[in-house]
Amino acid sequence: MDTIVLVGYVAGALTTLSFVPQVIRAWKLKETRDLSLAMLILFALGVLLWTLYGIWTGSMPVIAANMITFVLILVLLWMKIKYP
Amino acid sequence: MDTIVLVGYVAGALTTLSFVPQVIRAWKLKETRDLSLAMLILFALGVLLWTLYGIWTGSMPVIAANMITFVLILVLLWMKIKYP
Repeated sequence: MDTIVLVGYVAGALTTLSFVPQVIRAWKLKETRDLSLAMLILFALGVLLWTLYGIWTGSMPVIAANMITFVLILVLLWMKIKYP
Repeated sequence: MDTIVLVGYVAGALTTLSFVPQVIRAWKLKETRDLSLAMLILFALGVLLWTLYGIWTGSMPVIAANMITFVLILVLLWMKIKYP
């Protein structure tokens, strides 16, 4: 694997996994008042389009990172509704 | 501009601008308790690496989106410290 693709995967791992502590925090606090619903919706839509962009440009790091991020954002959206 | 690049810019605009309502919410509530600090730090680092990846792969949507996102995340980090 060349360096460029490696940096892409590390970047993707960071921006994707960053939502894990956010999900854990929402779960622990049972509260999401300070999270913006508009942010979650816009981010989810953006991540879907990034996945499409990744597919078209053949960029595996972009596809993988955004697909996993999408799932984590869906979990946060569900928590935002459950624990507003 | 071809469709692929256009989708990249729309994707970038969505994931980047999604942080604007989050900044506004933190500013209005003067509170960021439900925002995870670990999320903000990991996301900031990831976005920096995405910018590098964009430069190397010559992807302008990736560069532009991530540079602006980085600034917005810095604002949120500052708010997290100011209004914990």
